[in-house]
Amino acid sequence: MSENRNPVRVGISCGDINGVGLEVVLKAFEDNRMMAELTPVLYCGARTLSLYRKALKLDEVPFHRVQDAQEALPRKLNVVNVWEEEVAPEFGKATGTMAAFAVKSLEAAAQDLASGKVDVLVTAPIDKNAMQAAGFQYPGHTEFLAHLAGPEAQALMILVGEGLRVALVTGHLPLREVADAVTTERIVAKARLFNQSLLRDFGVATPRIAVLGLNPHAGDGGTLGGEDAQRIAPAVRQLRDEGIQAMGPYAADGFFGAGQYKHFDGVLAMYHDQGLAPFKALNFGNGVNVTAGLPIVRTSPDHGTAMAIAGQGVADEGSFRAAVWAAVDIRQRREQYRTITANPLQPQERGKKDKP
Amino acid sequence: MSENRNPVRVGISCGDINGVGLEVVLKAFEDNRMMAELTPVLYCGARTLSLYRKALKLDEVPFHRVQDAQEALPRKLNVVNVWEEEVAPEFGKATGTMAAFAVKSLEAAAQDLASGKVDVLVTAPIDKNAMQAAGFQYPGHTEFLAHLAGPEAQALMILVGEGLRVALVTGHLPLREVADAVTTERIVAKARLFNQSLLRDFGVATPRIAVLGLNPHAGDGGTLGGEDAQRIAPAVRQLRDEGIQAMGPYAADGFFGAGQYKHFDGVLAMYHDQGLAPFKALNFGNGVNVTAGLPIVRTSPDHGTAMAIAGQGVADEGSFRAAVWAAVDIRQRREQYRTITANPLQPQERGKKDKP
Repeated sequence: MSENRNPVRVGISCGDINGVGLEVVLKAFEDNRMMAELTPVLYCGARTLSLYRKALKLDEVPFHRVQDAQEALPRKLNVVNVWEEEVAPEFGKATGTMAAFAVKSLEAAAQDLASGKVDVLVTAPIDKNAMQAAGFQYPGHTEFLAHLAGPEAQALMILVGEGLRVALVTGHLPLREVADAVTTERIVAKARLFNQSLLRDFGVATPRIAVLGLNPHAGDGGTLGGEDAQRIAPAVRQLRDEGIQAMGPYAADGFFGAGQYKHFDGVLAMYHDQGLAPFKALNFGNGVNVTAGLPIVRTSPDHGTAMAIAGQGVADEGSFRAAVWAAVDIRQRREQYRTITANPLQPQERGKKDKP
Repeated sequence: MSENRNPVRVGISCGDINGVGLEVVLKAFEDNRMMAELTPVLYCGARTLSLYRKALKLDEVPFHRVQDAQEALPRKLNVVNVWEEEVAPEFGKATGTMAAFAVKSLEAAAQDLASGKVDVLVTAPIDKNAMQAAGFQYPGHTEFLAHLAGPEAQALMILVGEGLRVALVTGHLPLREVADAVTTERIVAKARLFNQSLLRDFGVATPRIAVLGLNPHAGDGGTLGGEDAQRIAPAVRQLRDEGIQAMGPYAADGFFGAGQYKHFDGVLAMYHDQGLAPFKALNFGNGVNVTAGLPIVRTSPDHGTAMAIAGQGVADEGSFRAAVWAAVDIRQRREQYRTITANPLQPQERGKKDKP
């Protein structure tokens, strides 16, 4: 990477302060070599961060307080002071009060992302229940950011790990509602987003996408459910007609058991646990959640608030660090993709003709 | 293990002859050192086996043809000649004709298992569709054997791998029907069977059982489905009241991602892919399927007929070999458990008193 290029400005929402979010942020930036490539901008209350830092005995991690992200300095952990209150963490408790601060942080970060004050967004984990108690109207970050992007925006959740990318047709949905929600139309729409993201966010030239079945053994010829033959197989055919390299449906257990995922650039799972349980089993704590399909770039660690271990100093920052790097990489690949897919020859040719 | 003990007689059904079943059987017994501990009794047509052996270039694997399992010889791969026809394999094709032979093999093996001519049963994979076309009335081996065991018999499917045992509350059921089928009563019944099997089949003194949730994030406090709080949590409480060390419900993805399964002797999953996709992801091709809860001992490899690679000689016999050893181990542990849980002191004491 070039030396004189501006480092990517990484906006970071602080998540639920009673959980492990700020702990993994502080640990990730304890080593300041990361900041050669990126400038972190954390949205939080500076006093709150000081209290958290002290409670976790991470006092040696310095930060730079600013009122606006535009004041952010390179090679510093910049903290946009979103609130003045001296809120102390109550580790392990999901409270509406603390969730309200998480909302403030997220809204401020999302606003600066939209206006270009930061280039990408990495979100620390929130407690979904507490957030809803605090008046947050969305099931999660993904839905909130899709809403900000406009009524037509479609987001896709992709989990990225070592040699494995898993996207979900349905996400935070009760299992009871999954079978009806898995329609041919939705599978096709999600696979298109996945394909587009593999092209522009991950630099895959001709993405190969495996589509999992819905039922055990992908329905076993219809004896274990009809959706695989009636909805998923037609979706795969339609995708291939469109020129997308989709294959399947594959029985989920055999697919992961035989390591077939190694032959694909992406795996489209039908529902949350089908995709995420094997994904996480294979990526012990180093997976990254990417929100694809939107104009903005957002990533997050693949873990939650981990209230059970909050405040103990034992949280592993690996997934958060991977999320920061993933956001930076995606930002750069999108720029490359824009360059290589632009109409590159016309200006040159015209130039030659105009000025002989 | 003692030298003079009778080797365990392992009945083996040949499964679908157009698949990889006989290939993994022949490969497993190519090395005859296994037979020091056990005597294999394969139920097949001897002529069919010869043709299969030739097609796979496994001619050097000898077998001993018998008409009845009682004629089986130690240190031989015994073949009970279930049919005379010279049926040649048509690799990769699921046909009703071939399934009918698979049924013959399974029925003969199950009969000998019931009458004690063999001690345990290991089943090679069948094609469920072809079996049903051939008039087989059961979704799979497990249900067939449960039926043979009587109207009150309850079977439990357990997948056993390296450091991980996963049992299923619902098995071969369309995903659409899963949520209704996951009742408190059924969870309790399956957990009891699991606990009992961990005690007597796996030699665990005080089994710890993790119970997974049904919905994403185990329902996330009710926002993603109510079954976790309304059905699964009460089942866990009831089990604990009965003295069974059950814990949960746990969100499946985080449970596998954080490696929490390492702290448990067994994991009770709510449905097929939730348990088997992460299980197989963690046990590339070396898992074993155990049918618990029945008086008989039955195991199988955790893969299917693998029609796509049948006849090519590339099938891995690891899972089948592990299934054979697991059956032998379970047989021996059950005997030990019977001994240690019998009333051991009474006869001794009585003996002392009667003959002073």
